[in-house]
Amino acid sequence: MGKRKVCVVVNSRANYGRIKSVLSAVKAHPDLELNLIVGASALLWRFGNVAEQIKADGYPVDAVVYSIVEGENPTTMAKSTGMGIMELATQFENLKPDVVITVADRFETIATAIAASYMNIPLAHTQGGEVTGSIDESVRHAITKLAHIHFPATEKARDNIVRMGEDPQKVFMTGCPAIDVVADLDLTPNNDLLHRYKGVGPDLDIHKPYLVVLQHPVTTEYGSGFDQINETLKAIKSIGMQTVWLWPNVDAGSDDISKGLRMFREQEDADYVHFYRHFSVEDYARLIANCACLAGNSSSGIREGSFLGVPAVDIGTRQASRERADNCINVPYNHKKIENAVRHQIQNGSYPQNTIYGDGKAGERIANILADVNISIQKKLMY
Amino acid sequence: MGKRKVCVVVNSRANYGRIKSVLSAVKAHPDLELNLIVGASALLWRFGNVAEQIKADGYPVDAVVYSIVEGENPTTMAKSTGMGIMELATQFENLKPDVVITVADRFETIATAIAASYMNIPLAHTQGGEVTGSIDESVRHAITKLAHIHFPATEKARDNIVRMGEDPQKVFMTGCPAIDVVADLDLTPNNDLLHRYKGVGPDLDIHKPYLVVLQHPVTTEYGSGFDQINETLKAIKSIGMQTVWLWPNVDAGSDDISKGLRMFREQEDADYVHFYRHFSVEDYARLIANCACLAGNSSSGIREGSFLGVPAVDIGTRQASRERADNCINVPYNHKKIENAVRHQIQNGSYPQNTIYGDGKAGERIANILADVNISIQKKLMY
Amino acid sequence: MGKRKVCVVVNSRANYGRIKSVLSAVKAHPDLELNLIVGASALLWRFGNVAEQIKADGYPVDAVVYSIVEGENPTTMAKSTGMGIMELATQFENLKPDVVITVADRFETIATAIAASYMNIPLAHTQGGEVTGSIDESVRHAITKLAHIHFPATEKARDNIVRMGEDPQKVFMTGCPAIDVVADLDLTPNNDLLHRYKGVGPDLDIHKPYLVVLQHPVTTEYGSGFDQINETLKAIKSIGMQTVWLWPNVDAGSDDISKGLRMFREQEDADYVHFYRHFSVEDYARLIANCACLAGNSSSGIREGSFLGVPAVDIGTRQASRERADNCINVPYNHKKIENAVRHQIQNGSYPQNTIYGDGKAGERIANILADVNISIQKKLMY
Amino acid sequence: MGKRKVCVVVNSRANYGRIKSVLSAVKAHPDLELNLIVGASALLWRFGNVAEQIKADGYPVDAVVYSIVEGENPTTMAKSTGMGIMELATQFENLKPDVVITVADRFETIATAIAASYMNIPLAHTQGGEVTGSIDESVRHAITKLAHIHFPATEKARDNIVRMGEDPQKVFMTGCPAIDVVADLDLTPNNDLLHRYKGVGPDLDIHKPYLVVLQHPVTTEYGSGFDQINETLKAIKSIGMQTVWLWPNVDAGSDDISKGLRMFREQEDADYVHFYRHFSVEDYARLIANCACLAGNSSSGIREGSFLGVPAVDIGTRQASRERADNCINVPYNHKKIENAVRHQIQNGSYPQNTIYGDGKAGERIANILADVNISIQKKLMY
Repeated sequence: MGKRKVCVVVNSRANYGRIKSVLSAVKAHPDLELNLIVGASALLWRFGNVAEQIKADGYPVDAVVYSIVEGENPTTMAKSTGMGIMELATQFENLKPDVVITVADRFETIATAIAASYMNIPLAHTQGGEVTGSIDESVRHAITKLAHIHFPATEKARDNIVRMGEDPQKVFMTGCPAIDVVADLDLTPNNDLLHRYKGVGPDLDIHKPYLVVLQHPVTTEYGSGFDQINETLKAIKSIGMQTVWLWPNVDAGSDDISKGLRMFREQEDADYVHFYRHFSVEDYARLIANCACLAGNSSSGIREGSFLGVPAVDIGTRQASRERADNCINVPYNHKKIENAVRHQIQNGSYPQNTIYGDGKAGERIANILADVNISIQKKLMY
Repeated sequence: MGKRKVCVVVNSRANYGRIKSVLSAVKAHPDLELNLIVGASALLWRFGNVAEQIKADGYPVDAVVYSIVEGENPTTMAKSTGMGIMELATQFENLKPDVVITVADRFETIATAIAASYMNIPLAHTQGGEVTGSIDESVRHAITKLAHIHFPATEKARDNIVRMGEDPQKVFMTGCPAIDVVADLDLTPNNDLLHRYKGVGPDLDIHKPYLVVLQHPVTTEYGSGFDQINETLKAIKSIGMQTVWLWPNVDAGSDDISKGLRMFREQEDADYVHFYRHFSVEDYARLIANCACLAGNSSSGIREGSFLGVPAVDIGTRQASRERADNCINVPYNHKKIENAVRHQIQNGSYPQNTIYGDGKAGERIANILADVNISIQKKLMY
Repeated sequence: MGKRKVCVVVNSRANYGRIKSVLSAVKAHPDLELNLIVGASALLWRFGNVAEQIKADGYPVDAVVYSIVEGENPTTMAKSTGMGIMELATQFENLKPDVVITVADRFETIATAIAASYMNIPLAHTQGGEVTGSIDESVRHAITKLAHIHFPATEKARDNIVRMGEDPQKVFMTGCPAIDVVADLDLTPNNDLLHRYKGVGPDLDIHKPYLVVLQHPVTTEYGSGFDQINETLKAIKSIGMQTVWLWPNVDAGSDDISKGLRMFREQEDADYVHFYRHFSVEDYARLIANCACLAGNSSSGIREGSFLGVPAVDIGTRQASRERADNCINVPYNHKKIENAVRHQIQNGSYPQNTIYGDGKAGERIANILADVNISIQKKLMY
Repeated sequence: MGKRKVCVVVNSRANYGRIKSVLSAVKAHPDLELNLIVGASALLWRFGNVAEQIKADGYPVDAVVYSIVEGENPTTMAKSTGMGIMELATQFENLKPDVVITVADRFETIATAIAASYMNIPLAHTQGGEVTGSIDESVRHAITKLAHIHFPATEKARDNIVRMGEDPQKVFMTGCPAIDVVADLDLTPNNDLLHRYKGVGPDLDIHKPYLVVLQHPVTTEYGSGFDQINETLKAIKSIGMQTVWLWPNVDAGSDDISKGLRMFREQEDADYVHFYRHFSVEDYARLIANCACLAGNSSSGIREGSFLGVPAVDIGTRQASRERADNCINVPYNHKKIENAVRHQIQNGSYPQNTIYGDGKAGERIANILADVNISIQKKLMY
């Protein structure tokens, strides 16, 4: 019997960081063979063309699949998902993997889940069982109900998955692969990091205190993004500290966020904000590990942030109810409250390491389980 | 404020019977307006062109959407779903409904669920919380995690939905709309019924004892359908009673079932089996209400069958673990056991009415709730 | 510099016979590498699963692409084409061929043409410049305007292509690859041929006179197929000679033709007609080479028929104006005229070989040209 | 008999200007009813959301169809076309138009042509028969071979269409509807025009001499766009006159052009260039009617430019061989030659009006013909 073929679908910048250690562990495992499909926003220049980086990191890409329907609204988010299913089904038909991994909860990850589960290919899912806002909350749990093997990142997430009726024998608390990347990393910052990625704005000095901001749209609050980002912009302006600002992801409403950022850039001509499209997984970790405060609504403040002890301010509802360590304060979309919270975190400085999201060994654990686990295609609600 | 626009997507022959009373109740409700989209196998001639029947029944169709990718295998089942999402998103964009209803658990129903929920349109779901086999088991629960309002058919199904973490305030045990249709119906049989639908085979006499057989593929057992149907065919041959046999639905593996039926038809030239493509919802109810035994793996033996007291034999795993009344016996794919069970049910005759799946008022209840309910787009796991 | 990668897309039963000798010549050419994609109706069981046969014939298939949207009407014909483009673009993106070949004029072949030409991949086209009816007439010439290299089958077709404004330097009269297959073949018939393919109907004896009938829908006369086929059925009934009847292709209106055939089969129970889904390219050639008359509207009566001297009756408009030899008589959709023409051809017997459609060397010529030709991506109307 | 339903599909900013007078004439015609579908880049914010403008201009939109697959490369250009066909087929199925109009030659216009012609809906085509570079050259002539009625803009274009084998009875030289818009317009410029559209850059004064630049990618030269635009940028920099610069369209390679423009903007901080996303059809006409020179490769320099006498410099191959008046000079991608040609045109000033592309009555003529013409669905090469 040959090696078990494990097919990973990477659909976005965020996906890659959260699965990279699994790619490496699967590739290294004697009983596993890695298949890699890269699609959706991971192929787009404006999100840093993650596909190129994946290849540069030494992972051969079996197929690329363009599937983002342009518009950045709820309609195109649905259509991109439909297109993803159609094309991934063809890829799976031709690659014939033994197991497929889908990562976390972004809208397009359900495309992987539907294609694989409908095709009787065992589906493994990372980061299930967590609780948040946005459409991600629905997507994540729907994928849980389609998946055959679960790799939750926390104890609580494991409990949630089991309570939802999944077979406890197929739920493995491995920790989050996102932690693996930061656990082993030399986190020393240097200015070269900031120069390598260009972007738009003044030169920043990584050796002086700086903020990092990354705020995505909340799809279930579509239409409010412009007001939401303006609260954050006001707060950052009021603080005036040099800031690394990342453009938002491709979710519905992204245009509203970008519009706010573009207007700020053009009208304020702020000499303390530099806008970036993208950092490598490792450089992003270095960046937040050394910042005075990370603000916005990326899960990285909560996830990698807890391990790295990053002072973080979580704005609004996108991460609502997500399990977190002490490093992260939640505030509503209110510029005064955002400002106060960021100032508080700057003052506070680094937090102690917390391993609720993992100890840095998730990738290996996942590969080992995938090599051994017996999988039944027929699922059954376990009540 | 205008009427609330309720959009129902009918994707198959089975869908229609299970939502017809809701169409009628929504249409009649003073505060609701009905939008109707018909797609997938409901448009196909070989499944009885349900779209034509819907129009003939007095429900105007706002849009038709062809979305079945031919092949009847797991790959095309996934692709049909992707295509459904793409096109339904466009329809929702243009119709702008206030709420969308998706019916039950067939593979293509998740297309409706994804398009609506991603587009921030409140999604209502009927027949959630039940337990079965096939991919339907996964699809049903995944839709529950995407839906904002739940209309389960049984108490147990309601409990399951709540246990899965749904907000109990949004779970309404209404009974199954499928029961509404049979509850009010004149069930008197007549031979005209059998002649009206043509099909292929000898003349049958509805006033003499007859069997009804309807056996679909089990997608999670793809590749075994030919053997499975042959067990059933052997059993029916051995009994030799006149039989109304319906062709299977469009699920992956349907070709295998059809091949078995075609080979039987050609080789046996059995003068007691007549093959039909389709009956109207009402005529199907009359047919099973008066049969000596209903065999196969359609849920109708369990659902409408419980209310009508139909002696039923449920074959294999497709309905595994589905809640049921006494009228239904489960047997494995084994011709001897099927034969014995069918003979037992013929002997037994009718069972008493059982209302676990509803009392005939589901449609009205659902329409009333849809007219009043407050819906939050943001879902949250309720643990 | 490596070998030039020539990618052939086979989308139907008919496609395969018309390109098979090219596959073989490309595969054998030292400077060429063959890529093979199989899609659309070539994957479907009801058209004989040509993909399996292609593999069995020793051509490895790089990718399969399901792309037929079920319905067999003008709407789904368009949708299947759209789906074909989307998926073929992904395949070309991943395979990166140096040249793509699209075959003839069936509706889905334009999908190959658009994907390749839009992607700046040189497009070669066989069977351009011919004149017929149906949507094929439009498709064929539209593909000519997208193609960079033309391999017409006849002198007249070459002239037509040049008159349409194509660069004469890129138009190569090679003859039709369909002739290559029949040119080298042992055409001796045997009864085993008829038994191997099963189908439905009585045993026929290949050593006694028999008819072959193959009548497709005419998409531009959508809605008339049922009446059209009934005229042919009446004529064949009246003649009463044993008949090999092939089911129609997947074009819009196919359902109407099939309905006519099914009704005939069930109502007439004719002991002289055997219905087949499919023959291999070679067996089909043997079948028509030895028949008393070939009737219907397949181009094979005109194309292969001219070379083999098959007495043929071409019914209706589908082949209207197609260049032809003496072996083929055209008649309208009229049972009396069809009957007379078929009787005339039976009487006449075989015709002399005519090489207007080729001399049996097309495949080699095409491979040699593909290995050498210089191709500019930018086309220009040559007036 | 009711009114003839004429369905126009508008897929881009450019489409709208070239068909607007037809919309208005069809809407006003007593025997015609206007159906309007807006799709592709006409829905996108970054191209000025043309859909909103169409509605504001008083044309109700029957359906919007998002169909641009993001990537701006040859692969996504093909995929967007495929998606367009799939969705337009559904729209045509539901709207049931009597005739469909497709505009000119952009890549996505063939989607309209395929959907309509495959569905036996008579297809009318404007701007056929012209000669250019880019994939448009292939697309335009392929559409001609699919279309049933032709409305060429020039005598030469009419001749070309007839020479390609179209039925002369169905080829109507109406002139180009794009001219209609500028023919009736008050062309007086005012600064308000420039302020209304925002964009990025310094305030420009419309009453002082200014340049307009609009340079699209050439899809058949994909990969060279960055170098090409840099030649133009160098030339404009060297001249230093205030400049209205429009972002390119969505064709493959657009990213390269945009990258060049962004780099110029950021590195040069040129106080004489203002970048705009979009102008209304009328304001664009005013803008070029009053400019010192229009440079780039938009057909508007040739088409509307000939009528308005705009001094124009056509750069590169995109408009190669397009019929033109004296107002337009062609130069290769060479900054020195571009600079010289622009300086020459500034010096020269306005040219006399030339009506080769129409006299301003095309819309009316087209509406009148559509109301009367008899159309046969079956096409035939007329040699």
